[in-house]
Order: sequence, then structure tokens, then C-alpha cells
Amino acid sequence: MSQSLSFQDVIIRLQTFWAEHGCVIWQPYNVQVGAGTMNPATALRVLGPEPWRVGYVEPSIRPDDGRYGDNPNRMQQHYQYQVILKPDPGNPQELYLDSLAALGIDRRQHDIRFVEDNWEAPALGAWGLGWEVWLDGQEITQFTYFQQAGGQVLNPVSVEITYGLERIVLALQGVDAVWDMAWVGDLSYGDVLLQPEIEHCRYYFEVADVDALREVYNTYEGEAQRALAQEPPLVLPAYDYLLKCSHLFNVLDTRGAIGVVERAEYFRRMQRLAAQVAVAYGEQRARLGYPWLPEGWSVDPATGLVSAPAAALPADKIGAYPAKPAPFLLEVGTEELPAADLNAAIAQLSEAVPALLAGARLDYETVAVSGTPRRLVVSVEGLAPNQRGQESVRRGPPVKAAFDADGQPTRAAEGFARGQGVPVEALERRVIEGGEYVVAVVQEAGRPAAEALAEALPGLLAGIHFDKTMRWNWSGVAFSRPVRWLVALLGSEVVQFEFAGVRSGRTTRGTRPLGSPDIALKDPASYFTQMEQAGIIVDQAARRQAIQVQIDALATQAGGKVMGDPDLLDEVTNLVEQPTALLGTFANEYLELPDVVLTTVMKKHQRYFAVVDKKGRLLPAFIAVRNGDAEHLETVVTGNEHVIRARFADARFFFNEDLKRPLADYLADLKTLTFQEDIGSYYDKAARLEGLTARLGAALGIEQDTELEHAIRAARLAKADLATQLVVEMTSLQGVMGREYALRSGEPQAVAEAIAEHYRPRYAGDALPETPAGIAVALADRLDSLVGLFSVGMQPTGSADPYGLRRAAQGIVQILLGHGINLDLREALRWAAMDYTGELGRKVIPDETLDAVLDFIAGRLRVVLRETFRHDVVEAVIGAQAHAPTQAYRFAGQLTAWTAREDWPPILDAYARCARITRGQAQSFTLKPKALAEPVEKALYKAYQAAAAAVGDGVDVDTFLAAFEPLVPAISAFFAPAEEGGVLVMHPEQAVRENRLALLQRIVALAEGIVDLSQLEGF
Amino acid sequence: MSQSLSFQDVIIRLQTFWAEHGCVIWQPYNVQVGAGTMNPATALRVLGPEPWRVGYVEPSIRPDDGRYGDNPNRMQQHYQYQVILKPDPGNPQELYLDSLAALGIDRRQHDIRFVEDNWEAPALGAWGLGWEVWLDGQEITQFTYFQQAGGQVLNPVSVEITYGLERIVLALQGVDAVWDMAWVGDLSYGDVLLQPEIEHCRYYFEVADVDALREVYNTYEGEAQRALAQEPPLVLPAYDYLLKCSHLFNVLDTRGAIGVVERAEYFRRMQRLAAQVAVAYGEQRARLGYPWLPEGWSVDPATGLVSAPAAALPADKIGAYPAKPAPFLLEVGTEELPAADLNAAIAQLSEAVPALLAGARLDYETVAVSGTPRRLVVSVEGLAPNQRGQESVRRGPPVKAAFDADGQPTRAAEGFARGQGVPVEALERRVIEGGEYVVAVVQEAGRPAAEALAEALPGLLAGIHFDKTMRWNWSGVAFSRPVRWLVALLGSEVVQFEFAGVRSGRTTRGTRPLGSPDIALKDPASYFTQMEQAGIIVDQAARRQAIQVQIDALATQAGGKVMGDPDLLDEVTNLVEQPTALLGTFANEYLELPDVVLTTVMKKHQRYFAVVDKKGRLLPAFIAVRNGDAEHLETVVTGNEHVIRARFADARFFFNEDLKRPLADYLADLKTLTFQEDIGSYYDKAARLEGLTARLGAALGIEQDTELEHAIRAARLAKADLATQLVVEMTSLQGVMGREYALRSGEPQAVAEAIAEHYRPRYAGDALPETPAGIAVALADRLDSLVGLFSVGMQPTGSADPYGLRRAAQGIVQILLGHGINLDLREALRWAAMDYTGELGRKVIPDETLDAVLDFIAGRLRVVLRETFRHDVVEAVIGAQAHAPTQAYRFAGQLTAWTAREDWPPILDAYARCARITRGQAQSFTLKPKALAEPVEKALYKAYQAAAAAVGDGVDVDTFLAAFEPLVPAISAFFAPAEEGGVLVMHPEQAVRENRLALLQRIVALAEGIVDLSQLEGF
Repeated sequence: MSQSLSFQDVIIRLQTFWAEHGCVIWQPYNVQVGAGTMNPATALRVLGPEPWRVGYVEPSIRPDDGRYGDNPNRMQQHYQYQVILKPDPGNPQELYLDSLAALGIDRRQHDIRFVEDNWEAPALGAWGLGWEVWLDGQEITQFTYFQQAGGQVLNPVSVEITYGLERIVLALQGVDAVWDMAWVGDLSYGDVLLQPEIEHCRYYFEVADVDALREVYNTYEGEAQRALAQEPPLVLPAYDYLLKCSHLFNVLDTRGAIGVVERAEYFRRMQRLAAQVAVAYGEQRARLGYPWLPEGWSVDPATGLVSAPAAALPADKIGAYPAKPAPFLLEVGTEELPAADLNAAIAQLSEAVPALLAGARLDYETVAVSGTPRRLVVSVEGLAPNQRGQESVRRGPPVKAAFDADGQPTRAAEGFARGQGVPVEALERRVIEGGEYVVAVVQEAGRPAAEALAEALPGLLAGIHFDKTMRWNWSGVAFSRPVRWLVALLGSEVVQFEFAGVRSGRTTRGTRPLGSPDIALKDPASYFTQMEQAGIIVDQAARRQAIQVQIDALATQAGGKVMGDPDLLDEVTNLVEQPTALLGTFANEYLELPDVVLTTVMKKHQRYFAVVDKKGRLLPAFIAVRNGDAEHLETVVTGNEHVIRARFADARFFFNEDLKRPLADYLADLKTLTFQEDIGSYYDKAARLEGLTARLGAALGIEQDTELEHAIRAARLAKADLATQLVVEMTSLQGVMGREYALRSGEPQAVAEAIAEHYRPRYAGDALPETPAGIAVALADRLDSLVGLFSVGMQPTGSADPYGLRRAAQGIVQILLGHGINLDLREALRWAAMDYTGELGRKVIPDETLDAVLDFIAGRLRVVLRETFRHDVVEAVIGAQAHAPTQAYRFAGQLTAWTAREDWPPILDAYARCARITRGQAQSFTLKPKALAEPVEKALYKAYQAAAAAVGDGVDVDTFLAAFEPLVPAISAFFAPAEEGGVLVMHPEQAVRENRLALLQRIVALAEGIVDLSQLEGF
Repeated sequence: MSQSLSFQDVIIRLQTFWAEHGCVIWQPYNVQVGAGTMNPATALRVLGPEPWRVGYVEPSIRPDDGRYGDNPNRMQQHYQYQVILKPDPGNPQELYLDSLAALGIDRRQHDIRFVEDNWEAPALGAWGLGWEVWLDGQEITQFTYFQQAGGQVLNPVSVEITYGLERIVLALQGVDAVWDMAWVGDLSYGDVLLQPEIEHCRYYFEVADVDALREVYNTYEGEAQRALAQEPPLVLPAYDYLLKCSHLFNVLDTRGAIGVVERAEYFRRMQRLAAQVAVAYGEQRARLGYPWLPEGWSVDPATGLVSAPAAALPADKIGAYPAKPAPFLLEVGTEELPAADLNAAIAQLSEAVPALLAGARLDYETVAVSGTPRRLVVSVEGLAPNQRGQESVRRGPPVKAAFDADGQPTRAAEGFARGQGVPVEALERRVIEGGEYVVAVVQEAGRPAAEALAEALPGLLAGIHFDKTMRWNWSGVAFSRPVRWLVALLGSEVVQFEFAGVRSGRTTRGTRPLGSPDIALKDPASYFTQMEQAGIIVDQAARRQAIQVQIDALATQAGGKVMGDPDLLDEVTNLVEQPTALLGTFANEYLELPDVVLTTVMKKHQRYFAVVDKKGRLLPAFIAVRNGDAEHLETVVTGNEHVIRARFADARFFFNEDLKRPLADYLADLKTLTFQEDIGSYYDKAARLEGLTARLGAALGIEQDTELEHAIRAARLAKADLATQLVVEMTSLQGVMGREYALRSGEPQAVAEAIAEHYRPRYAGDALPETPAGIAVALADRLDSLVGLFSVGMQPTGSADPYGLRRAAQGIVQILLGHGINLDLREALRWAAMDYTGELGRKVIPDETLDAVLDFIAGRLRVVLRETFRHDVVEAVIGAQAHAPTQAYRFAGQLTAWTAREDWPPILDAYARCARITRGQAQSFTLKPKALAEPVEKALYKAYQAAAAAVGDGVDVDTFLAAFEPLVPAISAFFAPAEEGGVLVMHPEQAVRENRLALLQRIVALAEGIVDLSQLEGF
């Protein structure tokens, strides 16, 4: 970067580079689009079987990103350079890195990283997996394997590379604001674009006539439909109108004109249109006979799936496999795996490999599994050269048929023996499934380990489960990210197998900064040496340790210590192969921002470690971990410092902007922030929370008027910060910034704290809200969400819980239990439902919904209780106390104590006898005490009367059981055999029978609303 | 062109070239535009004082150019590469030619020509002058000096270079259809764009919902106005909407949805908006303080005009000017002058130079003026070294004051003499303006010729008048095209002057193919030698002759002769400096097209000479004249053959397309073809012509029913061919193709001929329509135009006659005279007016309008008659026969004969006496014959009665004068002195006086409606 390229130089170099790599050089679209993806050169050409390579600039218009030119980085228009490679050329990352080299970005001098990022455009029915590419901490490119577009599954998959041209040029030129970049010569980007930027912002935010443009949207949608209704459909004209609709929607949205329900409807409309266009395009290409299909490719007319002639994969020559136990190495070379996927794969392989070896009867000494973002490594020591042998018994004909009357083997027996390769004399007799058969006992020798492995390894890899998977090549294999090489060495020889279109061999690759050079391996033992020489720490733990040592040393050097963060350390460990920590600094002035803002930026956005002094105060420094060695580290430091400066400047800008209005002012902005399409906006939610908090406050015993007022005020403001710029930028700051802004807006401390607290607990084990107001709002928020979302059918399913309702329910339980709050959830849910019937929601929520919510919360309660109590005890209390978690917890404790008593069985048995015999009765009978004639009847009735009196009103399990215990002898006597004075409950005479049942029913009912003893074991 | 560049290669090379030449590389606009000019990088940036250089691709959308992909060259979308250089860099043509070299187009190997072409975009209030650039006959670029945009005069002027990328690549790749061009590698332009082309055509022509889109137009116009109403106005958002409106208009228009009046209104609306945006942009830049203004530039805040520091022009050193008569050479080096401008300049200089020399008292032997498209050359032989001396008389004090009583000179006289530098004794006395003064007679010596010339030459050049002029640099000079160098040599020395920012010197330039190399000149004599050596034939006549010889030779070689065409020869002579004719051929198959199509293409479009055999039949060959020598001529031949093939293929395509529908079918298409906004479309005109032809037919004596039917049918179909593709392409084929298509549609021969004929005479001296039907339609067409256009205020003005009404009126006169048709134009005009009152026009045309039309036709008639008759005779007949040209002509002949008679003066005198004395009477008196008492009265009355009887009904001049002649003696007697028996007309007694006047009025009235003798000389 000795001489920095101008903005237009960068474009010309990219054009030239991609032209040289077989791309069609295309032009920006002549309809306003939000991204290069929307240019039909991508959106349509990625569909269908035909190959396509294209590169083009795209000025991308996103009205609501406009900041009137005040922001150094965020504009309503930015420039993308878009590349599509279809199909995957096998080395798209390498091509991409070469293109950076063409811009003068030497991978050796920088830290270039592929950071997990998945892309989705619901309005276009499109998604893909891939990465953001970071250059010294700066995101410069989106790199995606396109899986779906226009609702169509893509085959083949396209590689989409979207360069953020401004970001790249900012980095190349080392300037802080896009406006200062040189477009060419003395002319800056701002010279050319600042004035239009300001004007367009004014238009989008202040001027556009929303009613008129809404009409245009309808017209244009109609035009698209007219175009599609032609025979054959007019794909491009329809698509143009879809793009115009999309832009109009963005303008309306930016103008704040789109209501919540309306927004969802617009999205559905665009999505539907996108799908129609995609289908029509596919049909059109089919009708045209896929003119671009290369020779040898073919499309299955039924499925539309394409196939290409498989390239012959070169196989290594095999010498002799080891005859003695030998080491085995498996390395799966991938493109950068997401951190969580790396962990998942290691964990699964750690179980699956021993299982595989056991199943394959392969003895071994040790198995070790580890990995880096680019490799999963399985290392087996002392692997047996062959499978253990095994004996197998194979059934032949029945004995009757195997031997003739003389006991001589028949022809059937002889045939069977011959078939099994044993002499007929060797056949034995066995009884199998009740019949007697001849069997051959065959000794099978184990196969060579290499063969067994070759057979089993593809399944091993295919069996790894990832949360999200992608396809990329003809193999159709789905994996976390593309597999690019496979090493499988048993001793010095290759175990030959194929997976995901890759054949195993003995060549691995070095680090990215060195250009991932091929490294040939002699044998498994040499692998770790060579990896070490290549600077790669394969072992996760060793890598984590190495990072810890480095960052500690740098923190000390900075005069402080690393702010501990094991999660971050784990994540960083999974992001690098060759960790080299570096210390960067930033200007003191940024320390004026709230700590949480700074640390969020550092950790969440940049994966930097923050540095604090002895008192825990932030120092103006950060530690990043580069993937690579220490050469040119100063360049990487400079780049990262530049990025953090820009990020902090952004944050400060947003923070200061946000402070220009009091927090309460942002409430109105919530109107355009959807909570859920069918329920309403966050503004509506805030209104509901106010009412619900008021009711809950009383129930929770918030007695002081001011305290209740604070709670209600906090409920009103709880979501306001969602409309502030800083929180829009960094969602994880929600609540925290609300607190900050509330304080600075002059809200009472209690209100501010409650705003921050109401998000707690964010996860199991998180701190709970502590203030009365915080507790009230936290509960209200969660109850409101549950009731509302259940009422519109958004209850979680097995795989999907988009609104985090499990966490919400669990939060309610945690708060109630944590603070020992007695709250009747049935009542609380009814209150929550009331707010949906008001002016806002106009939704009458049926009791069944509330029951379902209660069940759902009970499910979470069950999980919590089981951590402490026996399964059956939990069921017993939940059976009666699902609505009252705190009580349930208390009762569970009591019941546990009772069940631990030595005399518990007869007590339970006594109750169970009463319960079991009455359980089948559909009817509740009227007890007529006067009609009780037998002494045991009379005694039991008397005992019952005493117990009922003892149970009384303020009941709990202890009270109930203490009252019940005295009944036990009476019950025993009642049920005793007639000869011992007992009575027959099911007396033939109806009146007698029903009266006895009535008495038992009364006794059973003593537990009602307290505990359901029938759930206990031994009942 | 050994290896042809792909389409995208060409783009990348142009980007690179212009980037290297200081251009901002810009992107296509994200709104559909019709041309690169509409991108704000041109449309706005050319406004105001700030410099700007930019280059970009622009996919240009012109819906009505769409041909469903059937046409090899014409599409609704084509790609432009647009360059703006502001201000003029001084050598834009050379830069442009270098850019072609960067594409591998070597100027030495090709024939690259700058062919006059002026550009105008009324909807944007923009125009400029410049050229089409031809590469071996193919138009590849539009090169324009932008004079005005958004209704604003541009200062500085921008150079606009618009490459037609498809055309260039067609030429480079040598293919015939754009669809076959390589976009890159194996992928063709058609692969990428054919399907979208077809779809967009279908949408534009068949699908678009016109009512809905009309609404969108209104909405978008409203949005533009909202944006402009902001303070300050939002320029870019408003401009975007203007562009969207423009595209919507194009769609509506292509869909055939725009009525005639509506179209004009749309244009006015767009123009108004464009002007508003332009003004707002100008104000914005001023408000921003013109941030791009280079150091030293300044803007006058009052006028907005910019000035830059003048570059010091290097001046040649001057030695000694000749002391004896010497040759003088003036060469004005220009960018390619239009052929007509070259003629105009030569003609004017041929008069102005002698006048200048005379005025400057410079003696000389000969003056010769000639020139080529790139130079105007004045050559003077034997120019005197000095001006002739002259004596001047300077007036001093009156004699009375100059001499005292003693006759001695006073101090006043002495002072005057001293002031004039003469001794007081030398003063002379002269009478001046009635007074006597002393004068000094001063002998002035002539100044050196070089000084006098240096002073006069700028005025000489500034005085050249061109029909259209342009500005290009800071000098503000307006000329036909930019002046780039000046040679002015007197003997061996430079005559130093400056014009248009250029300083005279001794360096001229060679031909374009050699890169216009500098050629230093020793003296005027060496100029012609050096020009000859450079291959340049400066002399027009010599050049014409050289071309004639070459083309004759080639025609002979082709086995035929050149189809004579002096106009074409003249034009071609003015297009080249170094003519080299070349012979090209085309496939025989094209000879199947009508001859007129082929010759129109060759002559009008390509300036080729057609070749015919002895029988006048076209041969498949053409002769073009290259500007340059014979080297690489085969390349130029190939290129031109390619172009003519493409042109013929186009023509054949259009021809065949046109033939798919009978001619009558095209009538409906005329509805969208405006004749004039306020009158209606050509469809309306056709309807009017039918009616008018029917009425005229009867008046013209077309008696047979079939003949009249044919005329009416021809009237109906006369304009139909204007809607055919071939005529849309080649307007000059109107009528000719109508005839062709009519015949092929089965129309009667008479109808077909009338269609072709009705355009005749197209110019003075052109053939007339010959068939009755042709005559009727020709008259109807012209009468209709005159009446209609006059009625909406479109009568010709001194400088403007956009509808060719002078030619129309002249045509009427020519037809009537040519065929001796007696038609009363007063009646015919009333018939024409009737058709405007019908359903179509709803226009009542007042009599004053018809009178004005009649006057206008009379004006043409006057011109024609004067060619033959004396001025006063013409006036005399026109005074009475303006409505009847044929009669007027006949009467003029008769009157001429009478006036030639020796006894004519008394005849005229007799009539004049009667006329003169009655002329002043406001009243027409009643003749009371009985009251006539005097003999002369009675005799005169009797003679009058005889004459009146002789004049009778079927009068003409002969009849009238023959009848009048006998009255002469009676008149003489009547007016004789009383003593000779005459009477006093103005008798004191009223009754007598009035009766005598009444008699004379009757006599004068004999000529009424026949001739106005008062117009004759001697009256």
C-alpha cells in the first residue's frame, strides 16, 4: 500500500481482475437496488442449471441508512462490487484473495479473516452461508455460498462475493471518513457524492409523498403481474417492477409510513412476486433449452437438477499398509468453520471415532480429536493393522431336513456346507427360535484396517451434525462449510476414500497468510511436526493457552490486565490457526463513552480483549489476535486501530445523537418497530406493559405509591431505547443504554435501573432483576409476550422459537423462585390478556390460550424443579401448583421430606386406596352421614371430619399430610376384610355403595389444589 | 484489428484510457435513461462554471427503438460510452482519436471522418453542434460541443463524446448483427441480452397499463416539484423524478397512448422541469461557493460567467517584412466544417478579402480563396508592402476667426496648424457646409501592410456568417466549428494577430490519417507545395475534378458509369482533403430492392456514388471517397462494404416488414404521428385531405368517377407510408415507398402514382405531379397545411419556416401554372378551412386567416411572375388576380403586349385620368344617364355602354383593353378644356358633379376583377 489506489482505480482493477478470470463484466442496474444481489445478473442468473460468472459495480441504495452525510461510514448509497461464480470453482477463497492482491493487499502483510456470517434476504426468498471478510479487523467483503433465491433451492450453488468498495478504499487510503477518500486525483468521494447524499436523505426522510408512492407501489406490482400473466411470462419486465416496488417500500419505510401489519404484508407481497419471477425465469431457460449448458452437462427434465461429468479424482499410489499397529491421521480441510461448528464437530468426532473403531473391530491405543477453523483432525495411536477376527454362526436347514433317516447328511446339508465353505462334518446342531437347525460356525478373519476405514470414514464425516449446513458442489454433500481437502494416512500410506467430491491424500495446507501452501506429509507422526513448523497450533487447548499467555503479556505491557472473558477466549481460539496477539490503543477521549459501549464494540463486534487497570477501569487499549505470525504486525495493528477508532467514533456519534432527545421521545419511534406483525409494534407493547405492570405491582406487594409509579414509568420506557441509534447499531446494548439514557433524561434512578433490569435474566444463571420495579416490568414483559404470541400461533415448535419464548417462560420461573414471589399465574395471565382486548390489540384471547401458556410455563417450572427434586415429587406438586411456582417449590420440599419418612408408604397407600377406588367414578356423590351404618364407616367419617378441619384454608403439603396422617388407621380399618370388620365399598345396594364412595371422594379431595399424590411412585 | 476485442474489453479499455486522461470514471445511472447525456454526471455537471471530466458506460433505453430482437442493429437498449470534457481541452478530437487507437483502431489504416451532425434534445432544453464520427463509413460516435442544457447557455462549453459501443464492436469484430458480437469469450451479446430485449419490447408495445402509468407520471412530476419546493431545493431527487417521468413518457408513447396535443404538453412539462432543475443546480453550486473552481478562476456573481487566467500565447519572432510587393497567405485551421459552411465561408471571403484590401488601401495583384473541411485559405499575390498614402483635409477655425483684419493668421489659426503639424502658411480656405473655413491638407503615409492586416484580419474572420454557430473556448467567439490554428504569412514573416484564442503563426497541420502533423511553412509560396506534398488538395475545383476522374475510372472498372449527381460530388468535395476513391461491391440479392431505396442509402446516408450500366440499371457496386491516401485501402473498402451490407440488410428488413401489412393498414399508425401539436396527427390530416381532394377534384375538372375515386383514395393513403419502418428510417423515401407499397397492396396504378406525385414539386424546378389524382392531392396537401398552420400562428417568419410553407405555396403556384389550371384559390382555401371545422379539428378558421394565406401565396406568385414579366405588370395583374395564378400569368402576358404598343401611353393615360379623379371619392355615386346634359357627357356615356357590353362576362385583359380603347377619344374630349367642349368634373353643383363622377367610376370599374392598371408605371 505504498501508494494508495483511488476509488476508481480500485474499481478498474477489480474489473480487470475478474475479466481475466472469465467473468462477464456487467453494469450496475438501471433501477435503484438495495444491493448488487438484486441486479438480475445475480438474482436471476444464479437460478437454474447454467453456469455463469459475472462481475460488476453496484451503487446500492438503502434509504434508511441515510444520515444526511453526517456519518463517516453510513450512507443511503454505497458502492458494491459484486462477483458471482457459478458453479463453485473449487478455490473461490483463493481467487478472492488474489483479487485483493491485485489491489495491493498482500495477505502476508495483513490479517485477512473469514468471519462467520450468514446472509438472508427474506423479501427475495434468498439465503446463503458464508463469511464477512475482515482486513485487519475491518469488514470489507461478504462472501456467501448462495443456497436459495426466489424461494428456489439453487443447483448448482453460486459463490457470491460482495466487496464493500468504500470499506476497502478506506482501508487502502487510511482515511476515517468516506467523504475524504480520493475518488480520483484531488477529487474526493465527498466532492462527488456528499451533496446528493444530503439531498436524498432529505427527500427520503422528510419529503416523499407517502400516499402517492403507495399508489405507485400498487401500480407497479400490478405491472409486474401483467408481465407475468403473458404467455410466456415476461420475466425481466416483471422483475424490474419488483425492484421498483422494493425501492418504493424502502422509501415509504424510511419515511416512517409503514405500519406494522402493513410491513408484513408488503414483505409477503414482494416475496410472492420474487418467487413467481424465479419460477418464470426457470421455465424460460428450460424452454430455451438451457443454451449455456456446457457440453456433457445434463438436466433431468423431471427434477430440473443438473449433472456434470465427474472429474476423475487423482488417487495417490498406495504402497504397503503397516503390518503392525500404526498411527492413523485424518484431517478434514475446510474453509473457515464457524467457531461453534468447530466445537460441535470436535465433540461429535470425539464420540464417533471410538465408536467407529469399536464397531469396525479395530483396536487402538488412543484417539485424539482437535481442530482449527480450517481443519478437523483425528489422530489415532496404535491402530491395529487388521480388524479383529470374529466367529459367525450361520443357520442352515432344519435338522430334520439335514439328515436322513440314517443320520447321514442330506444333499441339503451338503449344499449348505459347501456354500459356507466348511466341510459337512463341521456342521453343528443348534436350537434357534424354538426349532433345531444345523449351523455352520465360520471364523471370519478381520479385513485390513485401511479397507475398513476407507469404507467407514465417509459415513463418519457425513454423520457430523451442524446447526446450519450448506451445499457447494456436485457431490450435494451438506456440511458446515466446504471441504477442500482430506488427509487420511495409516502409517505412511493413504487410506483412500472420497467425500464431498474430494479424494483423500497426503497433502495438507499451510496458513492463509502464506497462501495456504501445499504441505506433503510422510506419515501421521510427521503431521504435528510439520504443522508446528507451519506455525499452526492444531490442538484447541494448546491454542487457547498460547493466546492466554500472549494476551496476558500484552495487557501487562499496557499497564493493566485482560478483562476476563472465557467465552471470548474460546471463540478467538476457534478463529485462528496461528495466533499472534497484538496490542492496539485508542484515544483517551473515547473513554468518556459508557464502558459497556466500549466493551460491546470490542468484544461483540471485533472480538478484541478489553484491558482494565487494577481498579477494573478500562484502559485505552485493546488486544486483538491475528491469524499469522508477527511479521508486518505493525500494519495489522494500524489497521485494527483504525477500525476501532471508526467504530468508537460511530458509537460516539450515535450516543451523542441519541442524547439530543430525552428517552421518552423515542417512544413514538417505536410505532414503526414491529414486535410481531399480528400483534403490533413495540409502541403497542409498551402501552400494554404499563397496564400490566400496574396490576402486577399490586399483586407483587409494591405498596409505596412512588415505587409503583416508577414501575409503571419503567414499563412505559423499557423498550424506548430500541429506537435509539446506538441500540439499533448494537442490539446487545438494549436496556443498558435505556438505563443510561433514562438517567441522562432525568428519569428517577429506580426507573433507570428497572429499564436495565427488565431484560434479566437473559440466560439461565444470569442475574435476576432486583428492584421491585425491575421485577414487575420483567414479569410483565414476559407474560405479555407469551400471551400475545401464543394467541397468534407463534408458540415455539420443536425446532423454532424465534421470539425466545422458552427463555421468557424460564425467566418468569427464575424470577418468581429467585425472589420467592407468590404470584398466581392464572390471574397474571388473565391480566396480560386484558391488555390485548383494549384499543390496541382488539384481540379477545380465549381461555384455552391462557391454559396453553400456563402449561408451557409449567414445563419450564418442571425443568427447574427437577434440578432439585425427584421426578415424581415434581409431578405431584406441578399437578396442583403449576400456576404458582414458588409454592410448588415449597411444596416439593415438604413432599420430599414426607416421602423420606419411614412411615411414608402406609400413608401413601392409605390415600392411594381411597383414590384408586373412586378414580373410575364419573360422578361426585352426595355424602349422607346419617346413612353411614357400619362402625368403620362411622369412624372413618369422624376422622375425616377432623382432618378436614385441620386442613382448613391456608393449606400446604405439610398441613394436608399432617391432617391426613391420622386417617390412615381408619382407612385401613375401612378397607379391612369383612371378617376383620371392614366393609365392601362396592356394595350391591346402590345407596350404600354410593354413600361409601362419597365418603372416600371427600377424603381424596382433601389434597385438591395442594398436591397430586397420584403422581408419586408407589401410588 | 488482428485480434478483435470483446464487447467488455472495449469498455475496459475506454475506462482505462479516459481514467489516464484525467476523467472521473463514473457508473451508469440507476434510473432508466435514454442516453448517457441524461446521467446527472453530464446533464447537471455541464452546467455552471466548474470544470469536470468524466467517462462512463450508459445502457440507454429507448422503448420505441425496440424491434423484438428481430433487427440486427436496433434495440430498445443500447450501450453508450459517454465522455465529458469541460472546458474544451483544446484538442478533444485528437484525444478521441487516441482513444480509438487504444481500441486498436489505427487512424492510418482506416477512414475516420467527422461528419456534420447537430444534436438537440428539446425535452431537456439542450443542444449542441458537432459531428457523427464515421469509421470506414460506419457511424461510431457522436461528438458534440454542448451549447445549452436545461435551457441554460453553457459557459464554459463542454465537449461531449458519445461512443456507440455496439457500433464500434460490430466494426471491430466484423459481424453483421449485434446479437452475434462476442460479449466475452464464447458468450455473445445475444446470449446475454436477446431474451430481455424481446421481453421488454413485448412489455413496452403490448402490455404496459397506460392509464396507470400516466398516473405514475403525474405522481412523479409532483414528487419532483415537492423536492424543488424545499429550501434549498433538492436537486438530485427532483432530477431523478424527471428522468423517471421521461422514461414513463417513452413507455406511454411506445404503447401508442399519447395523443398529439398531449405529447406537446408532456414535452412542455419535461422541459419546464428540466429548466427548474438546471436553475436549482446552478444556485446550489453558487451557494456552495463553486468548490471545484481551480485557483485563478473567477465567477462574476452578477452574470454567473466564469473567467480563467488567459494562457500567454507564444508569438513567433518577426524578422523583416518585405519591402516589395509580396505574397500573403492566410489559413484558418478548423475542426471539420460542414460542407455548406465551407462554401459559405469561401464565398464570403471571396468578397470580403478584396473589400478589406481596398479599404485598407493595400494594392495587390490577385486574391484567391479556397479551402477544405479543415482549412480556409486566402492567398493574395503581389500585396503591396505598405498602404497607399492618402491626403486628408482637416477643418480648422472659420476664416473670419483665422485671419485678423490684416489678413494675418490669428493665434487660432497658428494653433490649428501646429496641431496638424503643418506650417501656418500651408493652411488653405475651403467652403464647407456653407461656411468658409481654413483647412489643413495632410498627406498621410500608408502603414506597413503587416500592421494594417494584423488590425483587420480578426474582423475579417469574425465577419464570416454561418447559419449555425457555436462557442467552444474562453474567447467566446462563435464560429461554424472550433478554430484550432491560424497561419498568416506576409512574405516569409508572420502577420501577428489573435482570433478565437488562437495566435497566428507559420505552422499548419497535415491530414488526419497521419495524425495532423505540424508542418512549418517558410513563406506563402511554399504553402501550396507543402500541402501538395502532404497530399492535401486545397483548391475546391481541383479537388472536385480529382474526385470526378477517380470515380469515373472506378466506375469503368466496375463495368458501368457513375450515376451523375453534381450535388453529391460537390458535397463529397467538401468532406475530404485528400480524396482517394474506392470501389466497393455488394451482393446481387440487394438489387431486388427498389432502386430508389438503394440509391437513397448510398447517397443520403453514406455519400457513396451509385454505379449504373449502360441502360441505367444499378450495378451491385458503389464508389466511396476516402479522406487519405491509398494505403490500407482494402481495410477501408472492407469496412464500407460491411456498412452498406448492414444498411441494405436493414432496408430489406424494413421493406419486408412493411410489406407484411397492406399500405392502408398503416393509416391507423398515423394517429401517433404528430403533424402539428395544435392541429392534429397525420391521421387527421389524411382525413382532411380526403374531403378536400373530393372538392378540388370537381373544381379541377376530374370528371370520371373512377378518376375521382382514385384521387380520394390516394388522398387517404398519401401519408400512410410515413408510418412504415423504411420511411421512418429514411424520410426522403416518403411518397416513393408509398407508391411501391400501394402497388404491392393491390391499389390501382393511378392511386400509387398519385401518392408518389403528391410530394412534387419538392423544390423549385422539380417535376410536377402529372396525373389528375396526383395534382389534386398535391394541391390539397399544400392548401391544408397552409390553412391549418396559419390558423395556429405557424406562418413563416423571416428566419423560420419549419413546416416549409414557402415551398408549399410555391408548389401550388407551380402546379397551377405548370398545368394551366384555373382554380380560384379563394374558393379552394374556404374548402380547406371547412375540414378544420369538422369533427377532427373543431376549429373555425376566420376569413382573415384565409386572406393571409392568399396574400402569402400571392407573394410566391409574384416571385414567379417577375421571372418573366415587368415589375409593374406583375403588380397590375396580382392586384386583381392573386386568387387565380394561371389567369394572372395569362393576363400578365396580355398586359405586357398592350404596354409594348406604341399607342399605349394615351390609352393608359385615358384610364388613369378617370381613375385618378375618382380615386379620392369615398362614395360610389349613382349614375343618372338622363341627367347627362353636355354632348361630351353623352358621348362618353354612349362609348361606355358599348365598352361595358364588349367586356361582358368572360373577361380578360385583352377583352377589357380592346373594349376600353374606343373610349379613349371620348375620355379625351370629356376632359378637354371647356373652350374645347370639355366639362368640369368637379362642377360646383353637386348633382352635376356626382353624376359625372358616377360615369367615370363606371368606366374605371370596367377593369375591376381583371387588372389593376394603377400599378403600372406612368399611371
